[in-house]
Amino acid sequence: MAKRFSVDTYVNGILNGDRVLLSRAITLVESRLPQDHELAQEVIANVLPYSGNAVRIGITGVPGVGKSTFIEAFGNYVIEQAGKKLAVLAIDPTSQRTGGSILGDKTRMESLSINLKAFIRPSPAGKSLGGVAKSTRETIILCEAAGFDAIIVETVGVGQSETAVHAMVDFFLLLMLAGAGDELQGIKRGIMEMADAIAITKADGTNTNKAKAARAEYQNALHLYPMSASGWLPKVSTCSALQQTGLDMIWQTITDYLKLTKENGYFERKRRDQNLQWMYEAIRQGLEDNFYAHQQVKEQLPTITEQVKSGQKSAFAAASELLKLV
Amino acid sequence: MAKRFSVDTYVNGILNGDRVLLSRAITLVESRLPQDHELAQEVIANVLPYSGNAVRIGITGVPGVGKSTFIEAFGNYVIEQAGKKLAVLAIDPTSQRTGGSILGDKTRMESLSINLKAFIRPSPAGKSLGGVAKSTRETIILCEAAGFDAIIVETVGVGQSETAVHAMVDFFLLLMLAGAGDELQGIKRGIMEMADAIAITKADGTNTNKAKAARAEYQNALHLYPMSASGWLPKVSTCSALQQTGLDMIWQTITDYLKLTKENGYFERKRRDQNLQWMYEAIRQGLEDNFYAHQQVKEQLPTITEQVKSGQKSAFAAASELLKLV
Repeated sequence: MAKRFSVDTYVNGILNGDRVLLSRAITLVESRLPQDHELAQEVIANVLPYSGNAVRIGITGVPGVGKSTFIEAFGNYVIEQAGKKLAVLAIDPTSQRTGGSILGDKTRMESLSINLKAFIRPSPAGKSLGGVAKSTRETIILCEAAGFDAIIVETVGVGQSETAVHAMVDFFLLLMLAGAGDELQGIKRGIMEMADAIAITKADGTNTNKAKAARAEYQNALHLYPMSASGWLPKVSTCSALQQTGLDMIWQTITDYLKLTKENGYFERKRRDQNLQWMYEAIRQGLEDNFYAHQQVKEQLPTITEQVKSGQKSAFAAASELLKLV
Repeated sequence: MAKRFSVDTYVNGILNGDRVLLSRAITLVESRLPQDHELAQEVIANVLPYSGNAVRIGITGVPGVGKSTFIEAFGNYVIEQAGKKLAVLAIDPTSQRTGGSILGDKTRMESLSINLKAFIRPSPAGKSLGGVAKSTRETIILCEAAGFDAIIVETVGVGQSETAVHAMVDFFLLLMLAGAGDELQGIKRGIMEMADAIAITKADGTNTNKAKAARAEYQNALHLYPMSASGWLPKVSTCSALQQTGLDMIWQTITDYLKLTKENGYFERKRRDQNLQWMYEAIRQGLEDNFYAHQQVKEQLPTITEQVKSGQKSAFAAASELLKLV
């Protein structure tokens, strides 16, 4: 990898909004080398006091919903109309980084990628979900310290990554297509219940009425859901990235949400809970990494797993047998 | 506690359907004493080959939905009409065992509790959710080995326990009241998405039409949900424990579900996955128990927790600091 700098160089660079040093620091965060890891932790510890001031927005939707197009249009709105500096991060463990391209695809987010108030960073390649989540979480801190006051964390609504994103953002936006039914089946169960808002995309041309009908249908369905602990009732709206419509409504919804949850204390409480949740999660991950890397556990796990699957051995007996090995 | 028997005595007693020895074995499973724990594991290892043949049904609903009354009526139906031997277990970490009473309340399930084909066991007292879940999971094995071929695991739809129950049953039934709105707010987000069926309770008298309307509304809402991996579309029905109506429909739904999932292989796959899930969960629990019981971790955790909550220390730095202590 590229030359490493001193902690001070990274820290001062980030705090001065230097995009190159920010990128380099993120590369450290994503690195698997122990010496990079240590350096990254020092950088993070130093910029931590300057982080936390952005609105963190998670955006998800199945492939085909027009997520990139939406984020490009919405991102430009957030920068131009709301006056924010925006960082877009992706959390997608399956994606391959393709030579510094934007979110893995050179044709995506063309106008946003050249906007000087936008910073776009694809998902780190070759990492597990836990690894990607950890990198993204730390990248949020770096971007905030660099002055980005709106962070979008993008994910694909088909896997486990939504739960990880939900645990690192303030607001969770689900993109949906009109013409419910088949498309929905790609959305993992449980994701809809996480959403603070649903936006029906591609509400333009002949699709406009279908989108409006879908909007009413989802709003109805959401009324059946239990009230969130935030006291917020999820909103459904329609939008068109093509016609640049509905983007203002979505930003307004986010603003309303922030106002409500900052007033009732939920915002601060959620941030604190998220911090703790990440600590406990990192401890769990560390304990499990050590355990499953243990030589004897590695040797015996396959046999014991088969015995448990076939019902020859109870799950608890198997666990205590394995725990005795370390 | 009462006198302990030999492993053979417990095992033979259970396999002969001896309710006293079954109860005693469950008490071993619930015990915190290490010697009881070992004895329990031996008993379980011996009866394990005779377990697995029951249909395992999770039932949840908020307080006030009439869960006990429903389980009493439905349980009697399962025994009398479907010809099953039924065990009813409760998983509720907050409940207090009150001197051998039935599910914590002597007045509950009166007719079911005197039915010789029913076995009712309250939640073990004074245990964490993890502890209750483990005991209940092992109790299912014991009850199945004792010849019970229908197991109901009851829980209260307000906490985390539903996820644990969902991970140990074949079929998950959610009880709901008609007149949506406020009542729903007691249901934890995500529980509705776990349901294989929803039953609207108290569909009798002046409430009948309201229940029917709620049924249609929920069935509609469920159509918006993503298809489950089982290929099963959750069903909504109404019932009245008072008038003994709708119980046959619910049993029919469970039968249909079992037929579909046994044919398409989902049933077997889910059971195997659940076994593995419990093993990994027990390993995780074991690792965390050891870690958090470590003297230095106990001493430093409170300070570090505060630093993380207030944002002074990053979650990951805190975790690696704590992990270095053991």
